[in-house]
Amino acid sequence: MGKFRINGNRLWDRLDELAQVGAIPGTLGSSRLALTKEDGQARDLVVSWMRQLEMEVSIDQIGNVIGLWHGKGTDRNLPPVMTGSHIDTVRSGGRFDGNLGVLAGLEIVQTVKEQKVLTEHPVAVSFFTGEEGARFAPDMLGSLVYVGGLDLQTALDTISVNGEKLSDELKSVGYSGTAPCPGITPKIFLELHIEQGPVLESEGIDIGAVESVQGISWTELTIEGQSNHAGTTPMTMRRDAGYVAGRISTFVRELTDQMGGAQVGTVGKVDLTPNLVNVVASKASMTVDLRNTSEAMLREAEDRLVTFCEEISRKESVKIASESLARFEPVEFNQDLVSQISTTAKNLGYTTRQMTSGAGHDAQMLARVCPAAMIFVPSKGGLSHNPAEYTSLEEISAGANVLLDIIVNAAGGCR
Amino acid sequence: MGKFRINGNRLWDRLDELAQVGAIPGTLGSSRLALTKEDGQARDLVVSWMRQLEMEVSIDQIGNVIGLWHGKGTDRNLPPVMTGSHIDTVRSGGRFDGNLGVLAGLEIVQTVKEQKVLTEHPVAVSFFTGEEGARFAPDMLGSLVYVGGLDLQTALDTISVNGEKLSDELKSVGYSGTAPCPGITPKIFLELHIEQGPVLESEGIDIGAVESVQGISWTELTIEGQSNHAGTTPMTMRRDAGYVAGRISTFVRELTDQMGGAQVGTVGKVDLTPNLVNVVASKASMTVDLRNTSEAMLREAEDRLVTFCEEISRKESVKIASESLARFEPVEFNQDLVSQISTTAKNLGYTTRQMTSGAGHDAQMLARVCPAAMIFVPSKGGLSHNPAEYTSLEEISAGANVLLDIIVNAAGGCR
Repeated sequence: MGKFRINGNRLWDRLDELAQVGAIPGTLGSSRLALTKEDGQARDLVVSWMRQLEMEVSIDQIGNVIGLWHGKGTDRNLPPVMTGSHIDTVRSGGRFDGNLGVLAGLEIVQTVKEQKVLTEHPVAVSFFTGEEGARFAPDMLGSLVYVGGLDLQTALDTISVNGEKLSDELKSVGYSGTAPCPGITPKIFLELHIEQGPVLESEGIDIGAVESVQGISWTELTIEGQSNHAGTTPMTMRRDAGYVAGRISTFVRELTDQMGGAQVGTVGKVDLTPNLVNVVASKASMTVDLRNTSEAMLREAEDRLVTFCEEISRKESVKIASESLARFEPVEFNQDLVSQISTTAKNLGYTTRQMTSGAGHDAQMLARVCPAAMIFVPSKGGLSHNPAEYTSLEEISAGANVLLDIIVNAAGGCR
Repeated sequence: MGKFRINGNRLWDRLDELAQVGAIPGTLGSSRLALTKEDGQARDLVVSWMRQLEMEVSIDQIGNVIGLWHGKGTDRNLPPVMTGSHIDTVRSGGRFDGNLGVLAGLEIVQTVKEQKVLTEHPVAVSFFTGEEGARFAPDMLGSLVYVGGLDLQTALDTISVNGEKLSDELKSVGYSGTAPCPGITPKIFLELHIEQGPVLESEGIDIGAVESVQGISWTELTIEGQSNHAGTTPMTMRRDAGYVAGRISTFVRELTDQMGGAQVGTVGKVDLTPNLVNVVASKASMTVDLRNTSEAMLREAEDRLVTFCEEISRKESVKIASESLARFEPVEFNQDLVSQISTTAKNLGYTTRQMTSGAGHDAQMLARVCPAAMIFVPSKGGLSHNPAEYTSLEEISAGANVLLDIIVNAAGGCR
C-alpha cells in the first residue's frame, strides 16, 4: 500500500472541540463525570460526528454507544472490527484520556471512507459508559456490562458518590438505549490510549504495544499500638503504630526490589493518631497498592505482605487488621494482535516496545470475549487524570496510523 | 528521729479539692490552662491554704507565687529551702501533674508546724506560672523568668495560642505581683512529681531519684518528591516522598538501637500529600523527636539524622528541608541531692532507682541557680497529660515523706 494515513490535524481539532465540553477554564482539561449534563453534551457531539460519517448508531441498555460503519461490499453478517474507549473524565481530567481512542476511531472511519477502502467486516467505534469510576463504581462499568461481566440491573441500580441512581442519570442525559446487554462480540477490539505513565517518553519510544494489564491489589492496614510520651517511654516499652507503618512502607520497597520484574508497590496513604510530635502514635491507618502482570507473582507479593505483618505485629506488640479495598487479576492481551502492533509500528518507521498497562482500560473487559490489545502513545511527564495531560499531534498521529493499519487489515480491507 | 511522717489523707484531700477547680466532668482530671479564670481560682485556693498555714505569700512580676514559712528560731536572712511545682494544666489534664509538688510542699509545712520542728532556714513552697506551655510558649515560662533565663518584659509580651497578651491575662486573674524577677536564690530546690512514664510502675519501684532531664531536639522534615501513578510508574523512576518518610522513620529506630543508653527517638507525626491509595506521594511532612541525657550524644543523633537525610535525598531524588522546632540541652541535677533522695528512700523502706526525666520540669530551671533535683513517684500505665492520670495515696505519701526528710534536713531542722 502506498501512503495511507490519517489526517492528524482533523483528529487534533476534534479532540479540541470535544475538550470544550466541560472545559476547565485556563487549562487544556475537561470535567465530564459520567452521565452528568456535560457527559450528555459530549455524547451528543460524538454521536453527531458518527452520523456525519454515515455510521449506524446504536445505544445499549447501559448507555454504551456503538457507531457501525459499513462500506460498499461489507458483509453485515460478519462481526465488526471494533475500536473505541470512553469520553467520560475524572473530575479534573485531561483531553486525551479515553477521548483519543474514540476520536481516533472516527478519524479511521473517515480516512477509510475518503480513501474508498473496501472492508469485508464492518468497523465499529464505541464509547463505553462510566469508564473512570469517578462518579459510579466500579470503573469500566459500561464495558464490563457489555461483555456480560456485570448484570445489567445491578449496574442500573448503582448509586453515585452523591446518592443518585445510575438508571435515572442515564435517562436524564437521554442515553438509556434499547440495544441488548451483553452486546455483539467483535472480531477484535483494539484501543488506542495515552500511556498515563512516563516510560515511553523517558525512553524516547513512539508506540507501546500493550501486552497486558497489571493485576491490582489494594489493602488497608490498621495498626493498633499504644499512645505514649515520646520522652518518658523507653524504646523497649513502646508499641509504636507510627514506626510499624514506616517499617511496612520500607518492606513494600524491599519486596519490589527483591521480586523485580513487573512488581510495583506503593504506600500512598498514611494517617497516624494522634499525629503529634511528642506522642508515640497509638494508631496508624495505611494503604498498600501492589500490582503485577502475573497473578502468581501478585499472590506471592500479597502473601509476603501478610507474613511480614504477622511478624512485625508480634515483634512490636501491635495489632494489625487488614482489609482488601480492591482486587483485580492481571489481563493478558492477544499476543498475535500485540505482535501486529509492533510490526506495524516498525513498518511505519516508529520506534516501539512491548509494555504493560498500569491502569485499567475498557480493552481488558473486551479481552474476555474477543482478541484484544492496546496501543499506547507517550504522556508528557507521565501525567494523566490532570488537566495538564499532554501528547503531541505527531505522537497522536503515529498511534492513530498504527491503529488504522491494523483495523483495516483485520476488517479485510483492500484498495 | 522517731515517726515523722506527712498526713497522706490530708494531702490526698487537697489534691481532690484542687482538682474540682476546672474539673472535667466524669473524670478525675482538670482543665486549667495558664492564667484562665480556672487557673485564677486555683491560685486563690492554694494561696488561701498558704495563709491558713501562716506562710508569707509573695507574688512576683510574672505571677509566680512563693509561700514562705518561718518557724521559731528561723533566720530570715538565710536563703529558703524551696520545694514546689505548678498548678496550671494542659487542656485535658490530670490531677497530679504539678499539683502534687505544690500541695506536698504545703503538707510538709503543715507537718513541720504540727511536729514543732525548728528550722534554721525558711521553707518556701512555690508555684510557677505557665509550666505547661499549652497556652503561652515556651513551657516552664514562669520558672525560666524566675532564674533570669528569660527577660521579664519579653515574657509579659508573650501572645497566647488565641492571641491574648500574657500581661493582660496576668492582671485579669489578679496575679500581676510586685516581687522582683529574677527572684531570690533558694538554698536548694527539690520538686516532687509524678513520673509521667511507665518505668517505676513496670519495675515495681516506689521512688525515682531523678538525676537529669533529657535534652530535647524536635525537627520538622519536609520531603518533596513527585506525584505519580502507582500503577504506571516503574519503581526506578519514582521520587516517592511517602517511602522516604517511612525510611526516615525506620532510620530513627535503627539510630536508637545502635546508640542505646538514654537515646530515644520518635516519629509521631507524618502527613502525606495527596495521601491517596493509588498515587505516589509528592510531599511528606514529618517530625523527629530525639532525646538524650547527654548533650554530646544528642548532637551525635542529630548529626546522624542530617547525614541520613542527605544520603536518602540523593538516592531517592527528593528534596528534604529541615527545620528545628525545639532544642533544649540536657540538665544534670545536683548529685548530692540525688544521693540524698536514694538514701532517704531506702531509710524509709522504699525501693528506689536513679533515673532521668523525659519531660521538662520547673526544677531544671532552678538547677541553673542552685542545687536542684526531683523525686518521681509512679504513674499508672505511664499516663499523663490525660484525665486518667493516676498515682495511689500510698505512692504519693512515699514521695512526700522522702521530700519531707530532705527539706527538713536541708533547712537545718531539729526537734
